[in-house]
Amino acid sequence: VRPCFALTVRVYYEDTDAGGVVYYANYLKFMERCRTEWLRAMGINQHRLRHEQYLQFAIVNLTAEYRLPAVLDDELRVTAELTGLTGATFSFAQAVWRGDESLATGTVRVACLDSRTLKPRPIPKDIFTEWRDGQ
Amino acid sequence: VRPCFALTVRVYYEDTDAGGVVYYANYLKFMERCRTEWLRAMGINQHRLRHEQYLQFAIVNLTAEYRLPAVLDDELRVTAELTGLTGATFSFAQAVWRGDESLATGTVRVACLDSRTLKPRPIPKDIFTEWRDGQ
Amino acid sequence: VRPCFALTVRVYYEDTDAGGVVYYANYLKFMERCRTEWLRAMGINQHRLRHEQYLQFAIVNLTAEYRLPAVLDDELRVTAELTGLTGATFSFAQAVWRGDESLATGTVRVACLDSRTLKPRPIPKDIFTEWRDGQ
Amino acid sequence: VRPCFALTVRVYYEDTDAGGVVYYANYLKFMERCRTEWLRAMGINQHRLRHEQYLQFAIVNLTAEYRLPAVLDDELRVTAELTGLTGATFSFAQAVWRGDESLATGTVRVACLDSRTLKPRPIPKDIFTEWRDGQ
Repeated sequence: VRPCFALTVRVYYEDTDAGGVVYYANYLKFMERCRTEWLRAMGINQHRLRHEQYLQFAIVNLTAEYRLPAVLDDELRVTAELTGLTGATFSFAQAVWRGDESLATGTVRVACLDSRTLKPRPIPKDIFTEWRDGQ
Repeated sequence: VRPCFALTVRVYYEDTDAGGVVYYANYLKFMERCRTEWLRAMGINQHRLRHEQYLQFAIVNLTAEYRLPAVLDDELRVTAELTGLTGATFSFAQAVWRGDESLATGTVRVACLDSRTLKPRPIPKDIFTEWRDGQ
Repeated sequence: VRPCFALTVRVYYEDTDAGGVVYYANYLKFMERCRTEWLRAMGINQHRLRHEQYLQFAIVNLTAEYRLPAVLDDELRVTAELTGLTGATFSFAQAVWRGDESLATGTVRVACLDSRTLKPRPIPKDIFTEWRDGQ
Repeated sequence: VRPCFALTVRVYYEDTDAGGVVYYANYLKFMERCRTEWLRAMGINQHRLRHEQYLQFAIVNLTAEYRLPAVLDDELRVTAELTGLTGATFSFAQAVWRGDESLATGTVRVACLDSRTLKPRPIPKDIFTEWRDGQ
């Protein structure tokens, strides 16, 4: 089985809306935090990547399904699993859990960009190899 | 042809991130603003709907494709077209434009909830009829 | 009397929280939108300013008083008045109105930074002169 | 000396803006997360407080000083110290640190509201006593 990276996230007032639940776009923030921590666990600091190697990541497409709402003060577990890797993009399956309940799931495809031009560029070979072998 | 509702949105610092572009989740805010104005144009104020009829909307699922990044100070046109309507959910195709360039597109399916229980409930008949005939 | 710049802002779900009101930090977003439009009215596009003149603005300090809450669907009027201008910083008095009701007020002091170093630098002479004479 | 409550916060893309730094209003989110965890450490869950006791908190006023910018991937320590307590409001001194550097400081005064009317009401006696004696 594939390892699945997980991050614990707390719901604060900033995440909620007047509907009394977490605002729908904010689940994408939680998912991005989890991808960022996955990158960090792989040794990648995006701030340095951008300033030293002129490389940044951009979302190409995504899907999200919302099943149950999260509310203020909930403790959530956000997961990310690398599901695809080509020379130029990588993909994740993600989920947001509250205990045993799956609140939301999503898929995200990410591309590498040159941060000076915002144009696509290949994933650097050392990063590609580490991700491929890390799975 | 179907009418397509449009809203003009300006990109402020709050919408951008350290990648120098609009943060990916914030396109969903722009799309939601456009759906809200579509509702308002149909005579629906969501604040009153919630407090007088105990009705609120919740996203069931969505997809998004990101083609080109928006940057600070861009003036964007966000569109929403009603593409589906059942007794319990309604769906939109949405897009974000900068002049003639399509920056992002998405689809969103929305359900009605009872705001006291956060459980699904049917779209009220008068709203359903107006939306169906408004198209 | 001094002219006071004003911007109309609509409250969307993204601005509210589970308390049923606009989240306190989001009033600062509204105030920043107003300052941005004041700059735009003075001929300044911050995106170009950053990329062509390596100049960006940063908040030095602020105060805010909250009197009455704004809620979903409110139409607000946000104002900004230039109250101070030195060689290195400029200051605003700001307010958020709903009709005749003053919901919140604030003061903000802003500095110029060199965007390559994030260090303070003087306000460019042409900008300083225009602001001074524009009042 | 008074105890000072602290929370560690990581800076993600969502927190930054196109100036390459944390957006100024987002420091207030960090400060609010710290106050929320202070409340939780005192045994208060705001979601339950609102739904069981019809009590919620609202910011009355605040000040903030920004000294140095936080950037993507920074690990910050946010602190909150209770500096005042009356029958109806309580006040905090707050700070945001990166290692030994003080990036920002602030003061916040908070009132209790009845969540059904959004009008001020006294701090419940048991909460008041715990806070007073907890210092």
